[in-house]
Amino acid sequence: MEYFFNPKGIALVGATTKPARGGFSILTNLLKGFAGNIYPVNPRYSSIEGLSCYPSVLDVPDPVDLAIVFVPGPLVPKVIQECVMRKIPGVMIESGGFSETGDEGKKLQDMLRRIAHETGIRLWGPNCMGLVDAVSHHVFSFVSPTIWDYGLIPGDVSLIVQSGMLSAGFLIDTMTHGTMGISKVCSIGNKVDVEECELLEYLIKDPHTKAIGLYMESIPDGRRFMEICSRSPKPIVALKGGKSRKGAEAAMSHTASLSGNGAIISGAMSQAGIIEATDFKQMMDFCRTLAAYPSLPRNPAGRVAVLTYSGGAGIVSADFIENMGLEVADLSWQTRQTLKSVFPGWMPIANPVDLWPAVEKNGGEKTYRAAVEAVCADPGVDAIFLHLFAGGFSLNFDISPLAARVKEFGKPMIAWLIGERKQAREMQTAIQKQGIPVFREIQRSVECLHVLFKRNKRETPWCSSIQSSLTPKASDRWKQVLAMPSNSLDEHVSKQILADFGVPTVPEKIIRSISEAKAAATSFGFPIVMKGITPGVVHKTEQGLVRIGIHSNEMVETAFSALRAAMPNGGSILVQQQINGSIELIAGFLRDPQFGPCVMLGLGGIFAEALADTAFAVAPISRKDAFHLMDQIRAQKVLNGFRNSIPVNRDALSDILICLGEIGLSCPQIQEIDINPLIVCNGGPIAVDASIILATDAFLQSHSHTKTP
Amino acid sequence: MEYFFNPKGIALVGATTKPARGGFSILTNLLKGFAGNIYPVNPRYSSIEGLSCYPSVLDVPDPVDLAIVFVPGPLVPKVIQECVMRKIPGVMIESGGFSETGDEGKKLQDMLRRIAHETGIRLWGPNCMGLVDAVSHHVFSFVSPTIWDYGLIPGDVSLIVQSGMLSAGFLIDTMTHGTMGISKVCSIGNKVDVEECELLEYLIKDPHTKAIGLYMESIPDGRRFMEICSRSPKPIVALKGGKSRKGAEAAMSHTASLSGNGAIISGAMSQAGIIEATDFKQMMDFCRTLAAYPSLPRNPAGRVAVLTYSGGAGIVSADFIENMGLEVADLSWQTRQTLKSVFPGWMPIANPVDLWPAVEKNGGEKTYRAAVEAVCADPGVDAIFLHLFAGGFSLNFDISPLAARVKEFGKPMIAWLIGERKQAREMQTAIQKQGIPVFREIQRSVECLHVLFKRNKRETPWCSSIQSSLTPKASDRWKQVLAMPSNSLDEHVSKQILADFGVPTVPEKIIRSISEAKAAATSFGFPIVMKGITPGVVHKTEQGLVRIGIHSNEMVETAFSALRAAMPNGGSILVQQQINGSIELIAGFLRDPQFGPCVMLGLGGIFAEALADTAFAVAPISRKDAFHLMDQIRAQKVLNGFRNSIPVNRDALSDILICLGEIGLSCPQIQEIDINPLIVCNGGPIAVDASIILATDAFLQSHSHTKTP
Repeated sequence: MEYFFNPKGIALVGATTKPARGGFSILTNLLKGFAGNIYPVNPRYSSIEGLSCYPSVLDVPDPVDLAIVFVPGPLVPKVIQECVMRKIPGVMIESGGFSETGDEGKKLQDMLRRIAHETGIRLWGPNCMGLVDAVSHHVFSFVSPTIWDYGLIPGDVSLIVQSGMLSAGFLIDTMTHGTMGISKVCSIGNKVDVEECELLEYLIKDPHTKAIGLYMESIPDGRRFMEICSRSPKPIVALKGGKSRKGAEAAMSHTASLSGNGAIISGAMSQAGIIEATDFKQMMDFCRTLAAYPSLPRNPAGRVAVLTYSGGAGIVSADFIENMGLEVADLSWQTRQTLKSVFPGWMPIANPVDLWPAVEKNGGEKTYRAAVEAVCADPGVDAIFLHLFAGGFSLNFDISPLAARVKEFGKPMIAWLIGERKQAREMQTAIQKQGIPVFREIQRSVECLHVLFKRNKRETPWCSSIQSSLTPKASDRWKQVLAMPSNSLDEHVSKQILADFGVPTVPEKIIRSISEAKAAATSFGFPIVMKGITPGVVHKTEQGLVRIGIHSNEMVETAFSALRAAMPNGGSILVQQQINGSIELIAGFLRDPQFGPCVMLGLGGIFAEALADTAFAVAPISRKDAFHLMDQIRAQKVLNGFRNSIPVNRDALSDILICLGEIGLSCPQIQEIDINPLIVCNGGPIAVDASIILATDAFLQSHSHTKTP
Repeated sequence: MEYFFNPKGIALVGATTKPARGGFSILTNLLKGFAGNIYPVNPRYSSIEGLSCYPSVLDVPDPVDLAIVFVPGPLVPKVIQECVMRKIPGVMIESGGFSETGDEGKKLQDMLRRIAHETGIRLWGPNCMGLVDAVSHHVFSFVSPTIWDYGLIPGDVSLIVQSGMLSAGFLIDTMTHGTMGISKVCSIGNKVDVEECELLEYLIKDPHTKAIGLYMESIPDGRRFMEICSRSPKPIVALKGGKSRKGAEAAMSHTASLSGNGAIISGAMSQAGIIEATDFKQMMDFCRTLAAYPSLPRNPAGRVAVLTYSGGAGIVSADFIENMGLEVADLSWQTRQTLKSVFPGWMPIANPVDLWPAVEKNGGEKTYRAAVEAVCADPGVDAIFLHLFAGGFSLNFDISPLAARVKEFGKPMIAWLIGERKQAREMQTAIQKQGIPVFREIQRSVECLHVLFKRNKRETPWCSSIQSSLTPKASDRWKQVLAMPSNSLDEHVSKQILADFGVPTVPEKIIRSISEAKAAATSFGFPIVMKGITPGVVHKTEQGLVRIGIHSNEMVETAFSALRAAMPNGGSILVQQQINGSIELIAGFLRDPQFGPCVMLGLGGIFAEALADTAFAVAPISRKDAFHLMDQIRAQKVLNGFRNSIPVNRDALSDILICLGEIGLSCPQIQEIDINPLIVCNGGPIAVDASIILATDAFLQSHSHTKTP
């Protein structure tokens, strides 16, 4: 990738002298920052801006290892063919007019893909803004050259952005508003060849990048993406557009992407240790916080000391801290003593620490210094949330030495700053130069603290493939099933297959007569459940095919007759032990177009639909992943046991979840598994109803691109 | 209150010539903006800043109807006594040193309260920043006089703020950052006399106020507050600090406030039609949005047209719109035709509308104008979300005429703006001058749209008192209960009382023998439930005192013996019809220190604790309030019926909720009612278990201040 980021020489195809055009902006940007050779290419000119202009890349002298292309779409394939002939390894295509414009454009883009595939030339774009690197001053983009006037502030956050306007707009916004530096902004557009995974791998190794932010509308190879992210020692923040229904529709018509199910994407990101953002500025704020504090905090508890000049702001901060699952730190005796030395005698010492009375007594600088030193030294404090004010009240002092001191202690500090606009900007710049992130809203500040402490950092990377030792105990049954004409296996067969793989299932038996039913009931013990099983009926309860609470032989007889009557076209009758559990869960397996095989856990019964309280992970899942799934359910408290009830056996439940993933990975013929309910009885989860959906040929074909083992 | 906001003459007690002191700041601020007479009071000076200075307010000539006091706390009572003698009707005490500083200060504050009570003089503060009125230029505050340099921008949002530093800090921040005007900022501090309710009533009538924001740490008279807010024709936004545990602790040590239960506060606010904010800047953003669009939108559906220059920003907007319960509008045929006229032919027209290709073709101004006109005229569009960019790309055009045009259509429009800092500020100022709110984050923009469309606007005001016609059918039983020594009524008695008031309860009977039990079972029909009732045992299940699923006479016998054995110290046995319902709810009544009698509805069973999915309303509640309670439950879908189940009879459920409130209002002796579970069976809710807690004398005394009828 080096020729994209640090080329020796660049051919600019589509260079022009017309100032309003992209080809002129790119050239201006190259001239301002790129130290290597620049070769404008345009048959209409012999020279542009004092540089020799060439009719084609074929005429360009050495050294040249990157071509930036900004000519109308239909001309692009020919240019690339010439680059191949000229042995230029990388081409950045910034022109639009490809798949985003409909069928014609799609054909054009397919042509590019073929060329790349056949010749090995690497293509970046098309329909993108290219690359801006504020550290090396490489602006390979038609972004307005006014960007240079604002000052390209070098920093340590790098971005990969699928949307072109967004990358340019946000770059300008960030440079001019935030006083925050940036390393590389990669606008990747339609991703015909170079895509997020490859760039991620480059940025993870890039010494100028400490944190990476991504905006994506599609994640075509979700599994590779997860593998890379889960291995990254650098924090990665991702914003996935198109998670809602309408958002997804918009995403499909935008960069011609396919958006995935929101819950699966969130689950996959969390599993891979990626921090999820929901808005652009929030993504940037998370990135700069993580770039300031890239390693995990020593203590993950997240006990925050709030130092404020406003009691009210302290209270609101405490509300956010608690609501986001962080803790308001209990200050040590030593800290209290130190604070007492600057506080007026009447002032009670508590956290949030309202410094105002002490500021009135000692001035801002002395008070803030004493307070910050004290909480930095307090072993019960994991992070500091500092409130700053610009514009008077003895609070306008030079904060830099204080910020530098905090950095020495190594505890994360985040500042909230309001006040007079000009002074606030100066104060922000000063404190951010010391590596302390500053925000204008309390909520955002606490969100960033939350990200520091509560991100799901993996200890071992996630690996897409497993060497599964999983084979069904009764392989004959499995073979029979595959030979069946139907794609949907009935409840009984589904549970038999699951049992073959080791999932605990309810004791049950297909019976042919009332006497067989009574015998089964005797062996299971009353109460029992009787069900009518008839091909094609999924919602048995609604069809009157489920009889629960059968606790006598008379009831068995009644139920048998009723079920027979309810199945005029025939069907079999199932007798089941009635499992009275404390919790109904739902567990399952499915194949996602972006992430492939996924495991699901959720609240079952009537709440499955009403609360949609489910969590997803991408298979294979580890025991830790399975536990993480349980922790993600909102109603997770029910798993821990409430009042005197027995908590769920987490190991047994994770066995089932791991197994579901392995079944799916081992059997490509299975499209979906649904265990609903998975009833927890005395702590042990038991599959009470289940269905397995086999993949149709069409499904198998459409999923062949998700590379599952 | 007029003498606080528009006094004829002001005595400033504690005026000084020392620039760093508050007394000097106040004087400077008065001199800069107040047109009436100013009388400095300080025995040490004969004149200050060219004004005659008086030794005491007693020496001040007429006209004077307001005293602003900034002298040390202990001197304040004497000053107020003198104001009483001088017949000055209003005093604004800005000094600190009162209840916020501990017991001594509390005594001092009690002294002030007594003087106000006995003499009728009105006191504002203490421990506050006073008043800033940007419209009349009345700055009765020690806020730094540099505020004049930034420009006091008059606007139509007024604020009431309990925290002093916050009101000053936010004022300066808002004036210098937001390019947003303000009307009055009232900092009310310890609220010894003048409090939020009275100021609210003033601001509701104030012609210069269109929307009101409040920051409060306590709402001592929650019921009056609700009445006022529910009657307000102007939108009210409130931020209540101290809703979490730690936040409440901080609030108590701050302005010496008592914070209430977060869920009750949120319920009360929603019921009174108040918009709740969680952060200061968010509160300001909600206020300015509502000041721009104070009346309810014509159509509450909230169908939003998104006009963007970035497909990615459009997608993220659509995600937020859907997640917040608004709709991405379907554009009409006419709108699509109009858009086609500016779009390149290949571009599909969808909402979010990605204008970029059209901007490239026609320039920004023409494209934006055509798009805005089209969606303004579209009857399927209720609001417009406009994306703006400052800093190039043909998007820097004068937006004012467009904004003015939108205002003519009367559809709310909100703009999201990023870009180059200086140009962005100019653009923001220009568009806000036309009354269009502008934000820098997509999330905040959509939050503000959400507030416009989804706020709970009452049709009739909430009224604290009711003429209840409620009397228990069997008043003898009620009298007996009140004579009982215990404060906690057992399940059976509790349900009898509830049934007397008209709440449907499960058929049940106390039985004394096995044969009585069998007779009861026969009359109810199997299955039945048997319970042991013994004084002082609340969690019967954990004590083995509940037997469910009894479906034969043999089981009755077994259960009878087991229950007898489980109650070695005696107790009675209850036989109950077993109610097998589809949903378990919890409903109740309690008394809140701030809001008095409250009704609660929530998800019952194991999820009551695990999900804490409950909603509160302040009694008395109307049928609409009861329906609103049901809508606030996260799992509300279960109430509507899922799959083929029968939906809850909403009228029957609201009867119970209304009744719970009326019982509480009619019977001050009842402290708490708990119906758990309230099982929904064939749509009808039935109280299956319940307990009534009677108030202790101590409780009755401590709650005497919440003025319940």
